[in-house]
Amino acid sequence: MKIAVDAMGSDHAPIPDVAGAVQAAKELGVEIILLGPQDVVQTELAKHDCTGARITVVHAPEVVKMEEHTIAVKSKKDSSMVIGMQMVRRGEADAFVSAGNSGAVMAAALFHLGRLKGVLRPAISALYPTVQGRCVVLDVGANTDCKPEYLVQFALMGRVYAERALGIAQPRIGILSNGEEEGKGSILVRETYELLKRSDHNFVGNVEGKDVPLGLADVVVTDGFTGNVLVKLSEGLVMAIARMIKRALTGGWRAKLALALMLPGAILLLPGIALLWPSIKRLIARLDPDETGGAPLLGVRGPVIIGHGRSNAVAIRNAIRAAMRAVEGDIVGAICDGLAEATTAGLPQMDETA
Amino acid sequence: MKIAVDAMGSDHAPIPDVAGAVQAAKELGVEIILLGPQDVVQTELAKHDCTGARITVVHAPEVVKMEEHTIAVKSKKDSSMVIGMQMVRRGEADAFVSAGNSGAVMAAALFHLGRLKGVLRPAISALYPTVQGRCVVLDVGANTDCKPEYLVQFALMGRVYAERALGIAQPRIGILSNGEEEGKGSILVRETYELLKRSDHNFVGNVEGKDVPLGLADVVVTDGFTGNVLVKLSEGLVMAIARMIKRALTGGWRAKLALALMLPGAILLLPGIALLWPSIKRLIARLDPDETGGAPLLGVRGPVIIGHGRSNAVAIRNAIRAAMRAVEGDIVGAICDGLAEATTAGLPQMDETA
Repeated sequence: MKIAVDAMGSDHAPIPDVAGAVQAAKELGVEIILLGPQDVVQTELAKHDCTGARITVVHAPEVVKMEEHTIAVKSKKDSSMVIGMQMVRRGEADAFVSAGNSGAVMAAALFHLGRLKGVLRPAISALYPTVQGRCVVLDVGANTDCKPEYLVQFALMGRVYAERALGIAQPRIGILSNGEEEGKGSILVRETYELLKRSDHNFVGNVEGKDVPLGLADVVVTDGFTGNVLVKLSEGLVMAIARMIKRALTGGWRAKLALALMLPGAILLLPGIALLWPSIKRLIARLDPDETGGAPLLGVRGPVIIGHGRSNAVAIRNAIRAAMRAVEGDIVGAICDGLAEATTAGLPQMDETA
Repeated sequence: MKIAVDAMGSDHAPIPDVAGAVQAAKELGVEIILLGPQDVVQTELAKHDCTGARITVVHAPEVVKMEEHTIAVKSKKDSSMVIGMQMVRRGEADAFVSAGNSGAVMAAALFHLGRLKGVLRPAISALYPTVQGRCVVLDVGANTDCKPEYLVQFALMGRVYAERALGIAQPRIGILSNGEEEGKGSILVRETYELLKRSDHNFVGNVEGKDVPLGLADVVVTDGFTGNVLVKLSEGLVMAIARMIKRALTGGWRAKLALALMLPGAILLLPGIALLWPSIKRLIARLDPDETGGAPLLGVRGPVIIGHGRSNAVAIRNAIRAAMRAVEGDIVGAICDGLAEATTAGLPQMDETA
């Protein structure tokens, strides 16, 4: 399996991008194609011990910057994003991973890889950590204004991803709403509800905001506006609570004195903490976005994983692992099949003009 | 000042509702009118020492149950919700507090108290805790599908509340969006942005989900669907993290042994914790929804505070305190004046048909 990796994607590119690619090549045994300006990538690569890692560099002289958008992708034909997508299209790579601007990755995928036949709108899917495990939330930013038919397809694509990449049998599919009862929700939600009720999914109906982290569904369908707010709010809330705790426990003579007083006690806690360490580590890993690595872009003609701009090497490595799972599970083929079945079953397939 | 309090509102009514009303009467010196079936309320009241508390009971034999909605309010003319709203309308009470079903409180307010002249849609406002203090988020559930003109009025109402009830001068007003840059957002957001840009508010533009808990705005305007998801997600996320931590630290012999090992150290921590206790208490109070007590319903002809169904006595007491602040700050009068000014200034005042 060959994964094409954008060496110029993340905020601190190419450092974490190259380091993560090397880690993936060594630890996961996957073949990596690194895309970026040859000299920049080679210089960065030289800093690593690449023994046993199968890595080739493909020259992509142009760089799409974080603040650039759709237009940059159109004009920069020699950028890592465009070349990466074209390699997937031509079968020279099995998947593409980039931690660049998600709008730009999305645009590059649409122009140079293309939508899957029958897909109305590709969607970016977040893997949201829950009390039970993980939940696929889509769309989280590709489509701000949606129609019910888009959301019906998001449900299918999310289901395929949950089944084949996360190994969840018969995933519970919910639609994000402002109340649990049937009949609650915006016009979009109520219309989508009716369509999903008639599908063969394991449809659990409306889920509220609180139900997402509590894990009441394995796939949560929503428009890209609300999904984006949901994902970013979660990030911000965790950051805000951390800052509030830090502020409460530090600063001022009181806090300093208290910390000094607590030192002997803290030392005595260490054996207990050591004993608990495996479960503490699992908990941290679960809440850590780097552990997921990236958000799959579903509905295009090849597996594409969009990493967070703030990705570190571990996040890039894990985004590559997510790409491998998408290839192994043949997500793209399964979405194709699912769409064909849905069409045969008479589920709505409108709006081919957009 | 007289505050009418729904004794039958909360999930565990009348216990927390009556207890909270007694607390408010004693601690805040406010006059309370308790509404509910006379015998039920009197029996509950008899359990408390009401020395020095000015509390009268008004008989409201009918009860709107938590699972009942708009229709119940229409038919139950002798319910606490309906009588409470009528008392505010007739000037027999200065404000109304209920921890009942928010849809039902809203319906009762619309039918029996009425919208303020010029208000297109009343909005439920959540007081969201942030790193900086508090932020007024509205709407959080009254209006699932909104028009730009509604959101423009939400901005005005939220501003008045922030200025007069929370004491924030020149509150920063943001619109919730899926990106910070101008031009990001759904059609609704982009159209509202244009209108708010022309207003005299201290408009800070788009705010993302993460910016809300980080406190980048004092008033965040959004449609009731997204606002509801935002508030409920925050609740659920805090619950989910607490459950995950609990699960990591308990259960199994390993955890039990670890806790036993940590006991001596934990005891040694106590003096330090005691020293930090004031700031820890402040932090907990900040994140505790009971501290806020309730969500003001803005845009109707009197101050109405909607408490959480899960309210305890402290939450009810604090909802009454919020009602007092709304009366003292003359929120209703100020919204009236603000709307009149906005009309004069040529801001949109459409859709009077709805």
